[in-house]
Order: sequence, then C-alpha cells, then structure tokens
Amino acid sequence: MGEFDLIKRYFTRPTSRAALGVGDDCALLQPAPGMQLAISSDMLVEGRHFFADVDPQALGHKALAVNLSDLAACGARPLAFTLALALPQVDESWLQGFSSGLWTLAEAHGCELVGGDTTQGPLTICITVFGEVPRGQALLRSGAQVDDDIYVSGTLGDARLALDALRGKVALPPDLFERSRIRLERPEPRVALGQALRGIASAAIDISDGLGGDLQHVLHASGAGGRIDIDDAMQFIADGARIAWASGLFSYENLLQCVLAGGDDYELAFTAPASARAAVASVAEGCQTPVHRIGKVEQSRGLRIVDAQGQEITHRFSSFDHFA
Amino acid sequence: MGEFDLIKRYFTRPTSRAALGVGDDCALLQPAPGMQLAISSDMLVEGRHFFADVDPQALGHKALAVNLSDLAACGARPLAFTLALALPQVDESWLQGFSSGLWTLAEAHGCELVGGDTTQGPLTICITVFGEVPRGQALLRSGAQVDDDIYVSGTLGDARLALDALRGKVALPPDLFERSRIRLERPEPRVALGQALRGIASAAIDISDGLGGDLQHVLHASGAGGRIDIDDAMQFIADGARIAWASGLFSYENLLQCVLAGGDDYELAFTAPASARAAVASVAEGCQTPVHRIGKVEQSRGLRIVDAQGQEITHRFSSFDHFA
Repeated sequence: MGEFDLIKRYFTRPTSRAALGVGDDCALLQPAPGMQLAISSDMLVEGRHFFADVDPQALGHKALAVNLSDLAACGARPLAFTLALALPQVDESWLQGFSSGLWTLAEAHGCELVGGDTTQGPLTICITVFGEVPRGQALLRSGAQVDDDIYVSGTLGDARLALDALRGKVALPPDLFERSRIRLERPEPRVALGQALRGIASAAIDISDGLGGDLQHVLHASGAGGRIDIDDAMQFIADGARIAWASGLFSYENLLQCVLAGGDDYELAFTAPASARAAVASVAEGCQTPVHRIGKVEQSRGLRIVDAQGQEITHRFSSFDHFA
Repeated sequence: MGEFDLIKRYFTRPTSRAALGVGDDCALLQPAPGMQLAISSDMLVEGRHFFADVDPQALGHKALAVNLSDLAACGARPLAFTLALALPQVDESWLQGFSSGLWTLAEAHGCELVGGDTTQGPLTICITVFGEVPRGQALLRSGAQVDDDIYVSGTLGDARLALDALRGKVALPPDLFERSRIRLERPEPRVALGQALRGIASAAIDISDGLGGDLQHVLHASGAGGRIDIDDAMQFIADGARIAWASGLFSYENLLQCVLAGGDDYELAFTAPASARAAVASVAEGCQTPVHRIGKVEQSRGLRIVDAQGQEITHRFSSFDHFA
C-alpha cells in the first residue's frame, strides 16, 4: 500500500465544519464571526511518550486527547486537527487500530481531520489541533489574581502509577494495574469543563508534566505565587494510587510524587476568585466532572506545598522536563 | 539547558499579527474578516528528508520553506506557524544555526512562530503553517479545465541532481555541485507568485514529489488528463542539470528523470485558460519569477509526456512515494 492509498483508507473522512479537508495543498478553515482560533501542537515519540507495544487504538486516542486537553485549558471548542505521522513501515493492523482510536475520540468531540503528512521514519505522531473561542474569552495562564482559589479537576496520580508499574518500579495486582493503565493510556480531555469555565476561571492550564510544575507556569505567568494544601483527605488522589498506598505497595512519599509531580494526568488546574465558588461548583456538576479546591494564589513568588502538619514540602517534588 | 529555557532562548520572539504567541496552552489567531485560514503540515525526518550532517541553518530554512510552498500553492498569505521538534540532545550550536535559518525565512515572509512542542527523540521537525486567503479564492487542485494551459514556475531538476551527487550516483565538479545543492537545501517558496495567481490560475500545486506525479494530482482532482510537451528547448531545466547533461556527466534519460520526477523543487505547477496568457505573463514579471508554459489539460484521463519526436515517454517516469 502506497502513501496516498494509506491516507485515503485510514485518514480521510468527509468534513462538514471545515471549508476544505484532506487532499489539497492546504486545508481551509473559516472561524465563525467574533471567534478566535486556538491552536496547539504536540509531538509523541516512541520510547519517550509511549512504549513500542502499546495498544495502537489507545495510542490513537491519546495522541489526539493530549491536544484536545490544550484546547480545554484555553476554554476552546474543538474544530479540526492535522496529523503528521512517521511510520517505520506500513502495518495495516496497526493503522486500523490507531486510526480507529483517533476517529472515535475525534468524532465524540466534533473535531475533523483536515490534513497532515505521512512519511517513513521512527514512529512519531505530531498533531496540531484547532478550536474556536469567542474573542478575548480564552482562558490564559496569566490571569490568576492574589487570593484566588486554586482548583484541580478529577483525580491525579494513576497515570504515573501505571507508568511506574510498566517500568517495573512498583508491582501492582492485575486489577489495580488495569485500572491505572486506563488513566495513562486513555486520558479524557476536559473539553466540556474548559468551555464551561469561560468567564468564571481567572487562569487555567492542563496538567501534562505534573500538578506542581504546571501550576507554577500559571503562577509565574500571572506574576504571583501560591500554596497547595495537602491535607489528610487528599480528595484528588486517584483511586489506584490511594489503594496502592493503603495496601502498603508504596510509600506516602511515592504517593505524593505521583499526585504532585506524576504527569500525564490531563486534568485541568485553574484559578477563580472566592466569589465564584458557587459558579465553579455548578459548572462542575453540569459537566459531571469532580472539581477540588486545593489551595490559594499568594503574593510571594513560587509554589509552596504544605502538608497536614503545616510543614512545607515543596523541595521534594519536581515536574517533568524533557531535557533536564 | 532545560526544555523551557531552550524554547525561550531559540524559539520565542514577540508576535504582532497573532493574538497570542508562544507560552500558553494554545496560540490564538484571528483571521481578518472575510478571510479563510489555509493550513498545511509537513514532517521532516533525519535520513529520509535530510542527511544527518546537513547545515542546520539550511535545515531551519527548508523546514519552513516546504510549508510556505504549500501556502503558495493555495494562494495564501503566510501568517503564523507552529514548530514541533524532537531532538536527540540539546546541541546549542545546532540550535543556533537551525533557529537562525528558520527565523530569517519566517521574518522575510511575515510568518510568526506561535507555538509548538519540544521533546527528546530522533531528529524530527514538524511544522504546521497558517496563511490567510480571501473566502472562496484559494487556488485548489480541482479547478483545471480541459484546454487550459499547464505552467511551471522557475526551473526543475537541480534539487534531484544534488541529491544524486550526495548519494554518490553522479560525480559533479565542485562548482556545479554547490550550485545544485542550494536548490536542494534552500528552496525559495513561490509565495508572491501564488498570491498573484489568485483569480488567474484555475488550479495549482507545489512540486515536492516531482512534476509528473504532482501534476497528476491536479488532473485527477479536476477529473481531467493532460500532456507535457518535452521539446528541444526544455526551458524549465535548471542550469545545473542542463550543464551536467551537456558535459556528458549524465544521460538524457537522467536529465528527464531529474526534471520530470526529481522532487524537492518547490516550484508551482498551475493551470490557466488560454485567455489568461497575458495575465500570467504580467504576474510572472511582477513577481520576477520565470514561468513556462509546458502543456495542455486534455479530456482523456492520465498524464502523457511527449518528446520532441512526438513519442509518448510517460511510462519511464514515476514520482516519489514514501511507502512505494
């Protein structure tokens, strides 16, 4: 099968929202009047972002999910995406699985594949995604104000738990492993929540490199600092990580590492004024997405993580840097 | 140097046309009223699209140039681009060269870097480029009409000549090699010509895989066929290839292969009605870009290549397919 047949068979479906889709030199998009186009790009490399033997359907899902998560963090509605794909060889069963995972998520969000590139090379996936957001209403990293509450959606830690298990760093019972692995391999981007938070949240980011590090980007961009209160409850610990800790499979230190610096969660971290608590709760309920208030924006720079004993434990956690 | 310092040092400059550039979850673009956004994405892989020892400045130029060439083929005006980059390691001298080649071309075309991704991995560059074009005026592949003239801009063949020399398939004198190598490594996208052809050309494509194959995409999309007349003059043979042939360094067959199926030319092939000949000539002069009339759109499907003796030689040439 040649390059053009491959594109036609696996990566071409009719478009209705794009003015022109796959098959010409460019795709054409026409944002609605008053809308800005939000654009984000993520590259996934075999051995770095996924293992060679990962289920191709899950990989197709995740490659698009991490990009939709960026749109969610801006409060944008998904519109379209391009896919650039380097493949070591044409493997029809792999392409069938990968494209099926991709299309299922794309169609669930009304996000149309409009173009891209296919080439021979080490397995690499680069998706660029386009969303629309009313002019001036995008959620930015730079809008957090001193005394705003800090929130996180959903739960954190299971993606990292699964990664540690796959790397042989922790031994998990099969059911616990499968439960965590879904969080690593099939993250659900918080697209509805992101859009619903427009006009309510003061700043937002999606958690890809770990809560601590990503939240610091928000605080830095906003010219502020902040505090995360790690209390006994820790309501935003994912089930797998909580069970692994409670079963003695790993330490409290490991637990905090997964939750605060684990990465690959693709939840939203956001800030909002205290006056917006009812609005945040209402939006969370409307989107059927749990949201937890976890700290405060503060004047003095940096992010402090404070444990149940009031001790600052910030220094023990760092986030992911591809070249550090 | 970490990931974020790397982005800040080499890939962040202020934007004026984009509503929001590098540094948030998404970039924001606002096409002018009445404009559509033209989007194209190309991925370049080491060992496939360039050699490991290529001058990084030339590589930075070419990675953007091949994308701008797609905008040119749609008649779009460059606006912005995203860059996703996988690097085996942080090599500051390489990054300095690569980014300098990239910025020089980007700024020459007013095309702003608005976002992207950086990761560790086998050297891979994926650029997605955005241009704007008045609604309904994009040059498509599908607009060619029977009896339209077929044109090609500039000259063809030297990029492939240089590639053959680098691969040891032909031995060139140093001056001839350097002259050809510029065409391979520093293609100049025909951005001004593409825009000037709006309303004149009936269809257009950029020549990346070879004139013959790329022209067939236009004819196929337009539901037509066509003919290229290879006459004695062959005015669109690039100087290097012409000299190599005239000096007996390679055969007439090699010459035609370079010109008709060479690839990497990044010239425009386009069609226009015979009534537009004066307009095409005027536009070409205005853009200081030579344009050659090389054939005709015909009713019967397929592309015929006819030599000076009236013999059809189509079967001897095929274009590039990454998986064939």
